Amino acid sequence: MPRTRVHNLNISLDGYAAGEYVTLDAPIGDAGRLFAGFDGRFIHGIDKADAPVTLDRVLTSTWAQGIGAEIMGRRKFGPQTGDWPDDGWRGWWGDEPPFLTPVFVMTHHPRPPIEFANGTSFHFVGGAPREVLGLAQEAAGDLDVRLGGGPSTIRQFLDADLVDVMHLVIKPVTLGRGVSLWEGLSGVEDRFTVETIASPSGLTHQLWNRNVPA
Amino acid sequence: MPRTRVHNLNISLDGYAAGEYVTLDAPIGDAGRLFAGFDGRFIHGIDKADAPVTLDRVLTSTWAQGIGAEIMGRRKFGPQTGDWPDDGWRGWWGDEPPFLTPVFVMTHHPRPPIEFANGTSFHFVGGAPREVLGLAQEAAGDLDVRLGGGPSTIRQFLDADLVDVMHLVIKPVTLGRGVSLWEGLSGVEDRFTVETIASPSGLTHQLWNRNVPA
Repeated sequence: MPRTRVHNLNISLDGYAAGEYVTLDAPIGDAGRLFAGFDGRFIHGIDKADAPVTLDRVLTSTWAQGIGAEIMGRRKFGPQTGDWPDDGWRGWWGDEPPFLTPVFVMTHHPRPPIEFANGTSFHFVGGAPREVLGLAQEAAGDLDVRLGGGPSTIRQFLDADLVDVMHLVIKPVTLGRGVSLWEGLSGVEDRFTVETIASPSGLTHQLWNRNVPA
Repeated sequence: MPRTRVHNLNISLDGYAAGEYVTLDAPIGDAGRLFAGFDGRFIHGIDKADAPVTLDRVLTSTWAQGIGAEIMGRRKFGPQTGDWPDDGWRGWWGDEPPFLTPVFVMTHHPRPPIEFANGTSFHFVGGAPREVLGLAQEAAGDLDVRLGGGPSTIRQFLDADLVDVMHLVIKPVTLGRGVSLWEGLSGVEDRFTVETIASPSGLTHQLWNRNVPA
């Protein structure tokens, strides 16, 4: 049974998983401290760089395992709002987006898909989380779907009880403001079994697995 | 730079990583408690079974990442000793050995290689650890080599300082006897940086990374 998974979601001690004020120069807004030290080289495997195999990197390496499609919010794709300007924007990632699968970007503003030679393609879709998930699952076939964020997007899927697995990385920083993962989700933990793992690096990892209904 | 890695090496509190008395009916000798609860479904990824994503399984899933060849001791391949009998033995794993790469079996007794349709092949080679590693690295190309055990084999490679990464799983059991990983290796830890991770399951994982010479 394919699952819907969240990986490497960095979150502050006060529950923020993204900053405010996203611009072209600041893809994550003013929450740079949330992502400082994140080593993205390992999202496709611990063998992808000649560097020590640490717990943090092992957990990072689960990102692509068995994933056939991603869903992301519009703000993860770009800083624009409203109708898409004719600006040639193809995402933050240059000619080699790391996704290597279809990616479904949730937006009320349709536009044609964008395809890359490395297997990544962006599809711009509207609709409720369950409908978008249906499209992503169809594209993923037997594989799992990754929810790529940002936090507002993940929050919608948590609210609709569509998240099966969620890997949080709690960073020992406080932000005071930003986009909260938890807003409006009081008690969501009752639907999950949560493993908490202290990393020697100072990070805390959590693995949330949705309880299977009895 | 390709590395030599050990993964999912179960070890008791008193340092034993295999039992004695390996027979056809007892592939791991009398050390069954070392392997009780090990869930091998995850060696090729956390997505390989519809089951919760736990820390233990995430660490298990690193086993195959970027691996192009394995080296194993003869006793991991089979219980025979001395010259190979004409018994049709093709390993413990049936028609689908999980390795999916060339495997180099260290033995003083040569025999022709054995090939499987799923990409696994067994090659029976003599020589010192460094020579066998050279053969495995040639077969692995740009990928890493996994040292598959048993403990006597890994001990030889540790002694020759040929292990770059080692993932130990310390089980809260005592065996009192068996094949020790550490025998004759006093002080080997000085050559490594060791991360220790307490798993919610009661296991302790360690990630050993060889210090890079200054």
